Amino acid sequence: MIREELTEKILDIKREKDWTWKYITDEIGGISPVLIVGALLGQMKLVKPLAAKAAALFGLSSNEEKMLNEVPYRGTAMPPTDPLIYRFYEMVMVNGPAWKALIEEEFGDGIMSAIDFNIEIEREANPKGDRVKIAMSGKFLPYKYYGNEQGIPDYGLKEA
Amino acid sequence: MIREELTEKILDIKREKDWTWKYITDEIGGISPVLIVGALLGQMKLVKPLAAKAAALFGLSSNEEKMLNEVPYRGTAMPPTDPLIYRFYEMVMVNGPAWKALIEEEFGDGIMSAIDFNIEIEREANPKGDRVKIAMSGKFLPYKYYGNEQGIPDYGLKEA
Amino acid sequence: MIREELTEKILDIKREKDWTWKYITDEIGGISPVLIVGALLGQMKLVKPLAAKAAALFGLSSNEEKMLNEVPYRGTAMPPTDPLIYRFYEMVMVNGPAWKALIEEEFGDGIMSAIDFNIEIEREANPKGDRVKIAMSGKFLPYKYYGNEQGIPDYGLKEA
Amino acid sequence: MIREELTEKILDIKREKDWTWKYITDEIGGISPVLIVGALLGQMKLVKPLAAKAAALFGLSSNEEKMLNEVPYRGTAMPPTDPLIYRFYEMVMVNGPAWKALIEEEFGDGIMSAIDFNIEIEREANPKGDRVKIAMSGKFLPYKYYGNEQGIPDYGLKEA
Amino acid sequence: MIREELTEKILDIKREKDWTWKYITDEIGGISPVLIVGALLGQMKLVKPLAAKAAALFGLSSNEEKMLNEVPYRGTAMPPTDPLIYRFYEMVMVNGPAWKALIEEEFGDGIMSAIDFNIEIEREANPKGDRVKIAMSGKFLPYKYYGNEQGIPDYGLKEA
Amino acid sequence: MIREELTEKILDIKREKDWTWKYITDEIGGISPVLIVGALLGQMKLVKPLAAKAAALFGLSSNEEKMLNEVPYRGTAMPPTDPLIYRFYEMVMVNGPAWKALIEEEFGDGIMSAIDFNIEIEREANPKGDRVKIAMSGKFLPYKYYGNEQGIPDYGLKEA
Amino acid sequence: MIREELTEKILDIKREKDWTWKYITDEIGGISPVLIVGALLGQMKLVKPLAAKAAALFGLSSNEEKMLNEVPYRGTAMPPTDPLIYRFYEMVMVNGPAWKALIEEEFGDGIMSAIDFNIEIEREANPKGDRVKIAMSGKFLPYKYYGNEQGIPDYGLKEA
Amino acid sequence: MIREELTEKILDIKREKDWTWKYITDEIGGISPVLIVGALLGQMKLVKPLAAKAAALFGLSSNEEKMLNEVPYRGTAMPPTDPLIYRFYEMVMVNGPAWKALIEEEFGDGIMSAIDFNIEIEREANPKGDRVKIAMSGKFLPYKYYGNEQGIPDYGLKEA
Amino acid sequence: MIREELTEKILDIKREKDWTWKYITDEIGGISPVLIVGALLGQMKLVKPLAAKAAALFGLSSNEEKMLNEVPYRGTAMPPTDPLIYRFYEMVMVNGPAWKALIEEEFGDGIMSAIDFNIEIEREANPKGDRVKIAMSGKFLPYKYYGNEQGIPDYGLKEA
Amino acid sequence: MIREELTEKILDIKREKDWTWKYITDEIGGISPVLIVGALLGQMKLVKPLAAKAAALFGLSSNEEKMLNEVPYRGTAMPPTDPLIYRFYEMVMVNGPAWKALIEEEFGDGIMSAIDFNIEIEREANPKGDRVKIAMSGKFLPYKYYGNEQGIPDYGLKEA
Repeated sequence: MIREELTEKILDIKREKDWTWKYITDEIGGISPVLIVGALLGQMKLVKPLAAKAAALFGLSSNEEKMLNEVPYRGTAMPPTDPLIYRFYEMVMVNGPAWKALIEEEFGDGIMSAIDFNIEIEREANPKGDRVKIAMSGKFLPYKYYGNEQGIPDYGLKEA
Repeated sequence: MIREELTEKILDIKREKDWTWKYITDEIGGISPVLIVGALLGQMKLVKPLAAKAAALFGLSSNEEKMLNEVPYRGTAMPPTDPLIYRFYEMVMVNGPAWKALIEEEFGDGIMSAIDFNIEIEREANPKGDRVKIAMSGKFLPYKYYGNEQGIPDYGLKEA
Repeated sequence: MIREELTEKILDIKREKDWTWKYITDEIGGISPVLIVGALLGQMKLVKPLAAKAAALFGLSSNEEKMLNEVPYRGTAMPPTDPLIYRFYEMVMVNGPAWKALIEEEFGDGIMSAIDFNIEIEREANPKGDRVKIAMSGKFLPYKYYGNEQGIPDYGLKEA
Repeated sequence: MIREELTEKILDIKREKDWTWKYITDEIGGISPVLIVGALLGQMKLVKPLAAKAAALFGLSSNEEKMLNEVPYRGTAMPPTDPLIYRFYEMVMVNGPAWKALIEEEFGDGIMSAIDFNIEIEREANPKGDRVKIAMSGKFLPYKYYGNEQGIPDYGLKEA
Repeated sequence: MIREELTEKILDIKREKDWTWKYITDEIGGISPVLIVGALLGQMKLVKPLAAKAAALFGLSSNEEKMLNEVPYRGTAMPPTDPLIYRFYEMVMVNGPAWKALIEEEFGDGIMSAIDFNIEIEREANPKGDRVKIAMSGKFLPYKYYGNEQGIPDYGLKEA
Repeated sequence: MIREELTEKILDIKREKDWTWKYITDEIGGISPVLIVGALLGQMKLVKPLAAKAAALFGLSSNEEKMLNEVPYRGTAMPPTDPLIYRFYEMVMVNGPAWKALIEEEFGDGIMSAIDFNIEIEREANPKGDRVKIAMSGKFLPYKYYGNEQGIPDYGLKEA
Repeated sequence: MIREELTEKILDIKREKDWTWKYITDEIGGISPVLIVGALLGQMKLVKPLAAKAAALFGLSSNEEKMLNEVPYRGTAMPPTDPLIYRFYEMVMVNGPAWKALIEEEFGDGIMSAIDFNIEIEREANPKGDRVKIAMSGKFLPYKYYGNEQGIPDYGLKEA
Repeated sequence: MIREELTEKILDIKREKDWTWKYITDEIGGISPVLIVGALLGQMKLVKPLAAKAAALFGLSSNEEKMLNEVPYRGTAMPPTDPLIYRFYEMVMVNGPAWKALIEEEFGDGIMSAIDFNIEIEREANPKGDRVKIAMSGKFLPYKYYGNEQGIPDYGLKEA
Repeated sequence: MIREELTEKILDIKREKDWTWKYITDEIGGISPVLIVGALLGQMKLVKPLAAKAAALFGLSSNEEKMLNEVPYRGTAMPPTDPLIYRFYEMVMVNGPAWKALIEEEFGDGIMSAIDFNIEIEREANPKGDRVKIAMSGKFLPYKYYGNEQGIPDYGLKEA
Repeated sequence: MIREELTEKILDIKREKDWTWKYITDEIGGISPVLIVGALLGQMKLVKPLAAKAAALFGLSSNEEKMLNEVPYRGTAMPPTDPLIYRFYEMVMVNGPAWKALIEEEFGDGIMSAIDFNIEIEREANPKGDRVKIAMSGKFLPYKYYGNEQGIPDYGLKEA
């Protein structure tokens, strides 16, 4: 069994049952819907209690339940051809240099983690047309200046 | 003159003067620092009053000022090799399918605009290590179901 | 079931029945033939009443009908190796810079939407050889100049 | 001298003089603004009388005028990173299969020419936001069924 | 059924029957062997009478016969890894600039059609080793200078 | 000095003098215009007497003359974005499999040489529009079946 | 049946029978082991008597035997990810320019054939670690200077 | 000034002075030689006191010193064509799946940081040939299971 | 049977039995867990006694056991989309130039072998968060300066 | 100064002086002409005494001499577009799988080194056309089976 087959099976059942993602993520619960949907689509791991709930909901076999508990080989094909996903890709492509300049000035040398980060997606009512509101927060990870004999801080603030 | 030469000149002056982006964007003002920095790095346009302010600040020639007022050929090389920018790229690559599923369920068939959108980046103090907080909001644009003779709504809500 | 399998099944039935796309799109109706054919080829969604008509026409199962109502992962492989599609690709490759210059001069900073757009394709009789006539219209979306404290318009007209 | 240098010079003068493309294409005249702008950006050839007008307008040297009269090495980098041009690319990527199906059904086996084609771009006023209206027309070129000893028509209509 | 499956079936039968391409193309007849072989390999369409002959020869089902009458999604993977096909690719890569210069000087601005073109391949006896003789002829298609108010010819001869 | 600089210089002089390729290749003579133009564009070598003639014609320095006599690093960027060259590329992409099948059936296992080959390009008058006529001939090179202890011929004819 | 399936079957039998390549190539004989193994892996053709021997050895069907006698679509994915094959690729990447310079100086303008060439691979005992000894020899093919009216030799020796 | 120009200048001076990297990194000191060399080659930032030392050593201008203190756009072209660097790339390509399996089993769902990591490179004497000894250590960063209402730990240990 | 099928079967059994890699590598033993896991994932060979142990543990057929003893076609797709593996890739991309400079200065001209190398991965307890500790050692292989008539050493130390 | 500039200068002098590679490599001597030419083209290092000879011959500056003594960033663009180099690339692409199978059977699990290897290129007189004779020999490097507690040999001979 490979993960793609499990994803296909889960989507077949979702379709069969007329379930929404909202229903599914409410049933499984515990963590963000983004993570649960990600796991059901083969990009995230579900910890054991949640994998068990997912298995019960979808009527999965024991081996399928265990597979949901495994860390998948993450990542999808790039550049994304789907317009919805491409728009996020474009934001990075066009705004990346400005984000880099502003984050490094504020935080010093390092990155915003893509691992220790969270995201929430919501509808924002707007008379000119509703908006997709996204709130993200990622831990800043300073570059480690190792082999450091002079008490140089791990990352360079403006004054470093 | 090409835009890369103007960007290089602006960065040379910024370095020479020991200016921060904060100082520069405060001086120019008017719109988000992300947009101003984007324009100075060659990815955005500055409207005339702001281009004039930028020109005054950096001591640019009239032609350089006009170039800041032009829409550049946007976009940078992908995949990004720089770790800070790559982390955003990775978020799209790993989470794209889940975002697509959740946004389409909530809003119907369409995309979140990368044009009519705004972003704010802030420091979020956190005892375990400060976090980069990003708030985005993009207009939802429904796929137009044209040639429509039956009053089918432009986008498919859950019930469509 | 994946979308490619449904597309293959639909094409098998179309061939079996000797149906033309004209017959099929007339039967399903409601929206442009471009959208209906796009949906049957796995690139567009059919809203529920149209998916029902398509399912009745092709004798699809309930799950297949629901799949037609889902937003697919859009997009095909590029560059297109097929000559018919490549010619459109070439038009963009050769004329893109001129279109950009002229649209931006006329409308300001922004894009022509590929989401809120419509297209009609027709035969144009011509004694030197008939022509394919294409009429497109896409909503102009101005770049949003957010964080705007100075009443700067959302997009830059010539005077901006 | 290479074509990119001439393009850069022309854009420098346009900026210097505060000319619009409309002014420039009106001055040069004779053919569509899309073609004139294309030539000035290095993608099209100007026939001699128009190259002469362009040279007079921009104060070009004799050799620069001759270069405008040469067929350039056409084509720009793909995929386009600029959002305005990308939207056209996306239309081809998403709608290519439907266009192919409908054109082939209507015209038979062949292509719409990207050489013997014309395009007009106009503003379409619209209370919900103005639209970019594009009218294209390309000659249909049937696949030649050569080596033909049986009077088979050069292209396959529905009945072929 | 997809075209690759039909191609595989046809090749299996050809092998089973010990047929040569010469025998097959003689049996089907009507058009050039290059086109018939192209169709059987999934790159060309056979008009109905020829598809019927091919179906009779190979014992194909009615649906398979109809598929041969459909325009396939043309094109194969590039660069070609097979040495025989690569040599043609190399000719284009090395000689393309000279061909462009000479054709444009002789014909003006335009292309040699890859649609309205024919090719014949023959053995040319030669004491130093036989040669592959290829005779091609493609219609020259001049770039259309549209929006033409001044009687400018559609393509630029040397004097244009 | 690199070859691109020499090519640029030669094209500058050709433009300056209003020379055609026909004039140039007549002046240099000796071999096919395709090869001479190829050499002047940096893809072929001119033997010494021809390099001398070219140098005299263009007023080149001794070192430039010697460079024309050197074998360049051949080959240009692929896929070609220029429509004229792309059409040849497309012919290979679409017809490659059929050419392979027919050449191998006629000649056995091997290739048509891209080194020991010649090409002639001519105008073919035609009332429906003139055609580009191309005559090519390349030596067939059979795959060598080395380590051959059994008198197996170097290439496999139909009977091999 | 496609060639990959035949290769997989042959490798399954080789494994099942505990045969070495040495045993297999001794049994089939006639030509170099490199060519026989190449054919069994889907990259070369076996002439009929050798295909018959291979079929007898592996117990292949008549159609499988005929497939071994066909010229396959040669070539494998590049760059090679397997370290053993990559090292050869690296040799070409690093040494290609020097090989080109030295071969062209010795032989003139042309190539070493990859078709009329042979290779032998042997173990070379060495106290510091045995070595892989490879002896290759390829026919030099001079570039044909066609359209030659002046007795210019087909390739340029040092004096040409 | 761009970073590549500074790197080139630094290497010119190093060559001129016959300095080794050991001498340079000893002079600048403070952090690992890997980081100092990385900064001088344009991949790392030097904090101010070290940038000052580097500037003094190399006789850099004030602006060059400031540039060394800036975070560069990190990353080099991949795949690496240089054999020394390629071997590291190959290790990742071949061993990546096993490293992933073992690290995830030991640590749970997450990554080894490429930011908060350190590396030491040493010579390891060995009678069969000295070895390059590399000691790395990177902080394990668990995937954050956000939106967590059930006290699910941030990462999944074997028992999660 | 292809290697991917065997890998899938092994992972199915591992999941079914709730075995950890630690359990599996302890059972098979003899060499590093990195190599054993690599072999079970299709990237390494197991020598016969270990393949036998693996076969006994997983209940594999004789042919599957033999396949584990074969050298696979090594290497996985790059760039890696999975974040855990990407971080290693990034280290090479960012640090490659510094590693090259330092290793060449210490060892001379050559590489660190990716074949004669070993790696150990361990958990390193750390109050700020445990770390992944990796110890690698690869044989330095000097570039061979062949054709050497002057006793030049095989690799260039600093003094060479 | 970058290596490409030094290569260009060396080639300019070689052309100016009408030197052959044979003359140059005889003058510098000491190691194989392949290595010397490789170094002069920017792919290899010359040890100090040879760099000194090369500098004397070409009249290089002290810094240029030192640059010849540095290890360059090796490797050229792939796939090679030049036909001479491509033929070697094709040999690897077509024959790689057979070479791998035969070398692994003879030597066990490992590679032929591309570092500790030598190559000689010679003319081989042949009445049917002279041949390029290449003799290569590379050290076989067995995969190290580390973490080895059972005396398993470092590489797997047939019996391993």
